[in-house]
Amino acid sequence: MPQINDSYLKLKAGYLFPEIGRRVAAFCNEHPEAKVIRLGIGDVTEPLPPAIINAMHQAVDEMASRETFRGYGPEQGYDFLRNAIAENDYKSRGCEIAADEVFISDGSKCDTGNILDIFGLNNRVAMQDPVYPVYVDTNVMAGRTGAADDQGRYAGLTYLPCTAENNFNPEIPSTPVDIVYLCYPNNPTGAVASRETLTKWVDYAKKTGALILFDAAYEAYITDDAIPHSIYEIPGARDVAIEFRSFSKNAGFTGTRCAFTVVPKGVMGTTADGKPQAIHPLWNRRHTTKFNGVSYIVQRGAEAVYSPEGKRQIAELVRFYLENAQLLRNGLESVGFEVYGGINAPYLWLKTPDGQGSWDFFDLLLQKGHLVGTPGSGFGASGEGYFRISAFNSRANVEEAVVRIKNLFGRLMA
Amino acid sequence: MPQINDSYLKLKAGYLFPEIGRRVAAFCNEHPEAKVIRLGIGDVTEPLPPAIINAMHQAVDEMASRETFRGYGPEQGYDFLRNAIAENDYKSRGCEIAADEVFISDGSKCDTGNILDIFGLNNRVAMQDPVYPVYVDTNVMAGRTGAADDQGRYAGLTYLPCTAENNFNPEIPSTPVDIVYLCYPNNPTGAVASRETLTKWVDYAKKTGALILFDAAYEAYITDDAIPHSIYEIPGARDVAIEFRSFSKNAGFTGTRCAFTVVPKGVMGTTADGKPQAIHPLWNRRHTTKFNGVSYIVQRGAEAVYSPEGKRQIAELVRFYLENAQLLRNGLESVGFEVYGGINAPYLWLKTPDGQGSWDFFDLLLQKGHLVGTPGSGFGASGEGYFRISAFNSRANVEEAVVRIKNLFGRLMA
Repeated sequence: MPQINDSYLKLKAGYLFPEIGRRVAAFCNEHPEAKVIRLGIGDVTEPLPPAIINAMHQAVDEMASRETFRGYGPEQGYDFLRNAIAENDYKSRGCEIAADEVFISDGSKCDTGNILDIFGLNNRVAMQDPVYPVYVDTNVMAGRTGAADDQGRYAGLTYLPCTAENNFNPEIPSTPVDIVYLCYPNNPTGAVASRETLTKWVDYAKKTGALILFDAAYEAYITDDAIPHSIYEIPGARDVAIEFRSFSKNAGFTGTRCAFTVVPKGVMGTTADGKPQAIHPLWNRRHTTKFNGVSYIVQRGAEAVYSPEGKRQIAELVRFYLENAQLLRNGLESVGFEVYGGINAPYLWLKTPDGQGSWDFFDLLLQKGHLVGTPGSGFGASGEGYFRISAFNSRANVEEAVVRIKNLFGRLMA
Repeated sequence: MPQINDSYLKLKAGYLFPEIGRRVAAFCNEHPEAKVIRLGIGDVTEPLPPAIINAMHQAVDEMASRETFRGYGPEQGYDFLRNAIAENDYKSRGCEIAADEVFISDGSKCDTGNILDIFGLNNRVAMQDPVYPVYVDTNVMAGRTGAADDQGRYAGLTYLPCTAENNFNPEIPSTPVDIVYLCYPNNPTGAVASRETLTKWVDYAKKTGALILFDAAYEAYITDDAIPHSIYEIPGARDVAIEFRSFSKNAGFTGTRCAFTVVPKGVMGTTADGKPQAIHPLWNRRHTTKFNGVSYIVQRGAEAVYSPEGKRQIAELVRFYLENAQLLRNGLESVGFEVYGGINAPYLWLKTPDGQGSWDFFDLLLQKGHLVGTPGSGFGASGEGYFRISAFNSRANVEEAVVRIKNLFGRLMA
């Protein structure tokens, strides 16, 4: 009989969002009349912009005739898209990234999990806490951890606490680390990294040989000109960092599926016997052996993100969600909440009142306000006492949520 | 510095198809006037059927308005597609497969590679030889093998030779095995498995506890009513087999990307300490943690495969490629080739003349006939002396290929 990968049994039972779904479903069952507003999961609500719709219709039509039909494409993505990315996301910002260092995929969730395939099991891995749960879970599945403790921290991982005390920017690890995940603008805290902060990390990586896995899925939400959009804006980063990007949150592709990973040719690892080995050919081999490319139709949609109309329409989308964030932030602050994020990010991160537990606050907000958010502790032990609210929603829902927050907490916190 | 996964260094340098691409490019460079016809890679050439095109246009339009826009879908796939598959591919053939045992993905290449994540490293793995290279390479990458020998056979894998002598249906392994890959209709040999053959494998798996990974990507090409389309047509198979299916070869989705994997709830493995563990929740956990679902637009396209018009149009497509196969088969046989496959499969598998090496025959066909096929040895040591020709092409190209084959080999083999 086949032996299973026992590491899967170490995973804590519920992925965060299914547990939220369970509680919301139970509440709605009991209160079918309640108009629940979901500010929990970070899913976009606005339709795809016209430039993308037009490009995808055209691509569908191409698939309908023999002359323009596309079968297998390059696993790494079509040149038209890799070139558009290298030009618009990198060269235009002075980053030296070549098109063949860009690997098109169907999602950053997949990429941040799959990247682990090409690394050995005995790497020491560090990550921010709170953190996107996929980084943790995929390391557990790969067998890089021991069991979880009561707070959900797995033995063998190095957690870098991010709290109000350090302004949600963690210290450099005090123990040796081989791989460190950084996510900016941060999910869930909405914190950003200044040029100085990123320079500190790149210098650390160059000094110690650590590899930075940089998740920039929310870079489109940066409004402050001084904040870098890519880690490659920092000199030397192309020797020490892999960057993950997505079309999910800028162009609304959560259900359309397209993302990319940048693996510069300068990034190096070592073999077990200490020989240097470039990472780029390993990722290329993984990508071409275990993946067969993103749908042609979807890649044409992603290309349209970089057309002049596409750029305008996407900026409009991002502005819309950031206005939502501002409304939520104002509403929460007006009743006395301590609120972080929501300025260069679509997420607000608030301190629960009176040191309430994250799940208690979740239940309160659901029961009394019919509002769904995400308990901070679901993102890690250091998220306890915090709560995430997403700005991805319609304007009407956001305005209604603000009214409910004011009604509920105007009394509670006065 | 991060340590790499050293198993990647065991991989033989070139994946088969890049090497073919290299030789063809070199030839075309030297002979820019040559009209090369590619019968190598198994990529479809005909446009997507109208039912699918219409469904995808409609889905693109849904993404353009807030009321019908779709963000994150269920990672396992939308119910509309899982239900259509369970109903049409399984229940209609008397197979007891439930919709929640069907996991929608973006390709069988991904699925057959990713399935290994949920199994331990010390499983003993068997596979047909010749074989789809991805099964081998993903086991190498996962660290389940030693180094490759001169013929490309990796230590630690159990190869099951498939040759004309056993009619391309391998013997039951003589040494203990935990996981066995079976592909029917077979890529590359075009062989099919009768009900008796599949029953023998299911009985073997039930007796020994082995798990069957059944790749049925080419089931649509089965023309013989007595040949099972799914391993689940065999009683007991739902306790011992995982089945992989794809829309690539029936509906022409090689560039559109949709497939599915069936993991019945009866399939069991064991933990390291010998406890039984169902496989379904493990795959569900992998799929929801490391994957974010297939594009909504593509899933609507796949759903249309099961509409009445979709079914008619797809049957027409398959018939077209099978007629190609028949023309190629007749042409090859008319000049004396020993030809297998091409009746219930889109691939012809031929013996090279006079025991010529597979790559020598490849070069001959390219240089003298301007035809590209796939050397049998590229699929494994037992493929040496054989050659694969794909029926995926336009009718004009197939007819021209037959003329060239007759001209070239009518003289050579007379």
